[in-house]
Amino acid sequence: MAVQMDEAQLMAFMREVFHQRAEDFGVDHVAENEITMRLFSAERHLRPGGTVSGPSMFALADVAAYLVTLAMIGPKALAVTTNCSIDFMRKPASGVDLIAKARLLKLGKHLSVSDVMLYSEGSDKPVARASLTYAIPPKD
Amino acid sequence: MAVQMDEAQLMAFMREVFHQRAEDFGVDHVAENEITMRLFSAERHLRPGGTVSGPSMFALADVAAYLVTLAMIGPKALAVTTNCSIDFMRKPASGVDLIAKARLLKLGKHLSVSDVMLYSEGSDKPVARASLTYAIPPKD
Amino acid sequence: MAVQMDEAQLMAFMREVFHQRAEDFGVDHVAENEITMRLFSAERHLRPGGTVSGPSMFALADVAAYLVTLAMIGPKALAVTTNCSIDFMRKPASGVDLIAKARLLKLGKHLSVSDVMLYSEGSDKPVARASLTYAIPPKD
Amino acid sequence: MAVQMDEAQLMAFMREVFHQRAEDFGVDHVAENEITMRLFSAERHLRPGGTVSGPSMFALADVAAYLVTLAMIGPKALAVTTNCSIDFMRKPASGVDLIAKARLLKLGKHLSVSDVMLYSEGSDKPVARASLTYAIPPKD
Repeated sequence: MAVQMDEAQLMAFMREVFHQRAEDFGVDHVAENEITMRLFSAERHLRPGGTVSGPSMFALADVAAYLVTLAMIGPKALAVTTNCSIDFMRKPASGVDLIAKARLLKLGKHLSVSDVMLYSEGSDKPVARASLTYAIPPKD
Repeated sequence: MAVQMDEAQLMAFMREVFHQRAEDFGVDHVAENEITMRLFSAERHLRPGGTVSGPSMFALADVAAYLVTLAMIGPKALAVTTNCSIDFMRKPASGVDLIAKARLLKLGKHLSVSDVMLYSEGSDKPVARASLTYAIPPKD
Repeated sequence: MAVQMDEAQLMAFMREVFHQRAEDFGVDHVAENEITMRLFSAERHLRPGGTVSGPSMFALADVAAYLVTLAMIGPKALAVTTNCSIDFMRKPASGVDLIAKARLLKLGKHLSVSDVMLYSEGSDKPVARASLTYAIPPKD
Repeated sequence: MAVQMDEAQLMAFMREVFHQRAEDFGVDHVAENEITMRLFSAERHLRPGGTVSGPSMFALADVAAYLVTLAMIGPKALAVTTNCSIDFMRKPASGVDLIAKARLLKLGKHLSVSDVMLYSEGSDKPVARASLTYAIPPKD
């Protein structure tokens, strides 16, 4: 199955749909059913102690699952998350970007299912693991 | 089991621990194993279309599960979320606060488990449902 | 919204679809968007120590979420579970039935979302909490 | 970190703890933080249509997460599942074993977190994906 949107197209789509929020995220690499993304390290994502907050980790997992779906089906602004289960396992390192590696496990007509591992850049021990389901809007 | 922290004490604790983020949230009511909170409607929580974003819903569920735990055990800045499963069911209404009703289902020595229903203020149809597990730090 | 199937109709449907497995379960009560069911206490659901096993708790939560959906939409053998998140919170009591109280939180065109609390009969402390999503087959 | 229990030791432990249920499962391979297991294809795990039932898939994921934890910490009959989130993605093939590949993502003092992919033997498309948390009993 061919990738429908490359890194630059996904970034452009994010800027269109998420506006200023898009600047928080970068798309490193897209391949068939896979994406690597990052949350840029910045003061506003931190919680006391200097580590990335839970909602910021959720946001990164959510956008990675969304973009790996769009990469395979093309731009659909209306796809919505229906379920996320996330395990927070380790404290992220402070002062480095948070990396998401997402895999598309199923792409159905109505639903996509992805899993996402989050890492502090430079470490191979996951800080969090998430699985997400997206509802795909019917074809027009 | 007696409530250890009332509404004002929880708000003061949030301001101390979350700093400026605390201004996003209000504690409406605390009772034994229950809390009602709100996310104040504000531009920065919205996604295109004017509805509350997924990460903002996650953030409200997370803080409600945290505070209902603290209400029963007293202030512990170090409690951390270990798992959250959230179902997004309906589009929140725009321009109104998002209300969280959290119940503490289990308070163990090491873990608390809560469930949270999120509503747009003025509606009784839930926009999201979450369950969260917190790891409680050992007593000093 | 009217209930489409009552207790006896749901039991008959279970016997038709689950055959001998249906004898493990009983439907106590059905109301709009709500069901109360039980897993009959029996040797084969137990794990060492005499308590109900995790898979048996999962099975009860799963069938309760399925039947509360069918109660509202009528018999559809083809509905399938797409996601379940379950928290095991307390050891079930031995020698008593396990009770499930399920609520239908959302009934959409393609998906239903339910939550289920499990109790040992005679106790009001939940032994487990589950949320389940069902994919509803398209209308013929 | 060294593996504490090999395939034969895990099988022996299962027979001791799960008795006759242990005969449903086989341990194919154990390595550091990884296990491959199977649910033997048998009439009693099937649902109408000849595919493996949801509770049987849950049971396999649960036992795989348990054994990958024990493989690294040694035999602890008292470890208990505290949370499972499972996505059912495809109908399992009928007449073949169900294979689980589990990875231990975190082994903490109190909790282990694993993820598990389930496949019908001979296929590389996952039928289900699960993440599980185990509470590890304190050292005696």
